[in-house]
Amino acid sequence: MTSLDLMRELHKPAETKIVLLVLDGLGGVPFEPGGPTSLEAARTPNLDRMAAEGALGQIIPIRRGITPGSGPAHLALFGYDPLKFDVGRGVLEASGIGMTITKGDVAARGNFCTIDDEGNVVDRRAGRIPSDEAIPLVDHISGIEVPGVEVDVQHVREYRFAVVMRGEGLEADIDDTDPQQTGVPLDEARARSAGSEATAALFNQWISLARERLVDQPKANAFTLRGFSSEPDLPQFPTIFGVRPACIAVYPMYRGVSKLVGMEVLDFEGESPENEFKLAVKQWKDYDFFFIHIKKIDSKGEDGDFQGKAKIIETVDAALPLLLELEPDVVAVTGDHSTPAKLRRHSWHPVPTLLWAPATVRADDQSAFGERSCAHGGLGTFPATDLMPMMMAHADRLEKYGA
Amino acid sequence: MTSLDLMRELHKPAETKIVLLVLDGLGGVPFEPGGPTSLEAARTPNLDRMAAEGALGQIIPIRRGITPGSGPAHLALFGYDPLKFDVGRGVLEASGIGMTITKGDVAARGNFCTIDDEGNVVDRRAGRIPSDEAIPLVDHISGIEVPGVEVDVQHVREYRFAVVMRGEGLEADIDDTDPQQTGVPLDEARARSAGSEATAALFNQWISLARERLVDQPKANAFTLRGFSSEPDLPQFPTIFGVRPACIAVYPMYRGVSKLVGMEVLDFEGESPENEFKLAVKQWKDYDFFFIHIKKIDSKGEDGDFQGKAKIIETVDAALPLLLELEPDVVAVTGDHSTPAKLRRHSWHPVPTLLWAPATVRADDQSAFGERSCAHGGLGTFPATDLMPMMMAHADRLEKYGA
Repeated sequence: MTSLDLMRELHKPAETKIVLLVLDGLGGVPFEPGGPTSLEAARTPNLDRMAAEGALGQIIPIRRGITPGSGPAHLALFGYDPLKFDVGRGVLEASGIGMTITKGDVAARGNFCTIDDEGNVVDRRAGRIPSDEAIPLVDHISGIEVPGVEVDVQHVREYRFAVVMRGEGLEADIDDTDPQQTGVPLDEARARSAGSEATAALFNQWISLARERLVDQPKANAFTLRGFSSEPDLPQFPTIFGVRPACIAVYPMYRGVSKLVGMEVLDFEGESPENEFKLAVKQWKDYDFFFIHIKKIDSKGEDGDFQGKAKIIETVDAALPLLLELEPDVVAVTGDHSTPAKLRRHSWHPVPTLLWAPATVRADDQSAFGERSCAHGGLGTFPATDLMPMMMAHADRLEKYGA
Repeated sequence: MTSLDLMRELHKPAETKIVLLVLDGLGGVPFEPGGPTSLEAARTPNLDRMAAEGALGQIIPIRRGITPGSGPAHLALFGYDPLKFDVGRGVLEASGIGMTITKGDVAARGNFCTIDDEGNVVDRRAGRIPSDEAIPLVDHISGIEVPGVEVDVQHVREYRFAVVMRGEGLEADIDDTDPQQTGVPLDEARARSAGSEATAALFNQWISLARERLVDQPKANAFTLRGFSSEPDLPQFPTIFGVRPACIAVYPMYRGVSKLVGMEVLDFEGESPENEFKLAVKQWKDYDFFFIHIKKIDSKGEDGDFQGKAKIIETVDAALPLLLELEPDVVAVTGDHSTPAKLRRHSWHPVPTLLWAPATVRADDQSAFGERSCAHGGLGTFPATDLMPMMMAHADRLEKYGA
């Protein structure tokens, strides 16, 4: 019996309100030996008070040592084992930029690449061309007609784009066209099973028409398609946990994953933590689970901006009273993964986690929110997928298991 | 998807160097209430400095409460779940003393035993006869001819030996001949499935010929065979992790396990930690993963020699600068299991673990390498099989999982 099965079986109605506050890329490492992390360096009186009143721990997003992408990391926070619920890369990429994937669609990730005169791959990422070079090329391969289906192409970032094919009887069991090495030709879209052969043929038609339009490009004169996938048919969050969930997030990727699991994705203006918390205030009565996502901590980490990361954390802390005045029953503050400014990228390090629940928490002896205090916290180090069951329990939303 | 699947999928090329330094039987318990363990009592300035710069934790070799043998414990350190990859005892015993097991061979462990005039077992280990009594007996049962196969017999230690049968169509699905109690006759080698019946018959032929040669022995007048097994066909370490791995170990057992997983086993003279580290210096350019095994810490633990165990740890510490001068990217110092001098045997206690990786580690607030500091370390308590993924991550040898 999985954790989700348990949740489905044990959840019960309640009036309690839960907030999952995700500070994207929260975890860090000391920038200098013996120094603080960004979170430890930030002045966070509100988070520290919550840490003193609540319990701390560290979560492992996927497995120890595994650096997660944002999609799997968020699935884990929502309680879904990302190694079990393998949302196709194509679907994640497409839904991440706000493309709608419905049942029967097939999505794929595209990478521009460079091939030589003989058709062999020279650069699998077309020299990592920047977005302003790639966007016109994506426009160029849009609007190609393939009989019987509709093909939507959108730019993602730099040399990456997403393709969604819509039509009757499409199936996504198709191998990547990326040969994963240079010096060899691109693969065709090859069906791995009979049911996908027609779809592979349609993609091959589209690929050859699209390539014709790129043939004169100096760098991006071809592309690969990877991660063919269809709507993942995830078990739905409201059914599993028995809550009315809302997503408050600025970036399409996080809105996309929330939608895939069945959350209501709220629209709002502005993009500061304050804007996001004010939306929660406004909609407080309408939902009992709020996923609030704050992106820029991760962005500063990826920029290698140690102080900038700390500053954004401080703006979140400063806005927190807005949220706390609503008297939520449970607030978890964590990240989807670590993004140490020192490493300038996502990392595998466990993520500092704060669980605040005045009525039910077993407070530990930590009194500040930081990597070191979380390593000593009473919650210990645990899989991210356990956070939802813990929030549910602290919100008194779970029946006892067994007599 | 298992951890090994993830490693196979995510590993990427890098120039980084990893050292896995295994101090066999490292973990201990206080010899006296409130006192230190051997590791805590040892003067280890280099390990303590590494502890201050790195992160500490404790590994669970197999499962909590399970005391491992050396074979499974090393498989776990190499990232293989020993409950899944059940390398046969016969194969471990034989490869442990340097016998080559190739596809199609069947290996078994032999124990000399004592039977009475009626053929009932009196002593399942023949009074634990020492090696100098057992070696001539092993010679005595060598060279017996069984038509169609070749049988190789080698002494292991004290009353133990290993048998390897080579030929066409052999299968190892055969029950132990050890009745596991005294006062009853030895069992025949009995096939558990039709495909192994011919092999069981060949073993029974060999057994009866070999027993004839022992009939006049006062103690070792018979033997049992256990753990019939064939080459385990383990997924290979270089393929899984994408590294060129070398094994530096003195004892055959550890060299054997390393060979089974596809490491290059290096030859050298001497057997001190210094000799082993000097070999790493010499071969530093040729490999990017070094498994270095130091046995005598375990031996002192099994002797109940609390101070002796601390002394050996000190000799390792004193030789460490040789290794550190090579500027490895990642060094993990741990043990395959605990061997508390107080208990004089392997134990189930978690093993103190130090992860040192200047460029990527999240240093915790511990500053000495010992059981208590590791229990408070930032890495937490985790399965031994997670250590390889963590070393790989810290060496920047893994791609991100998911978009």
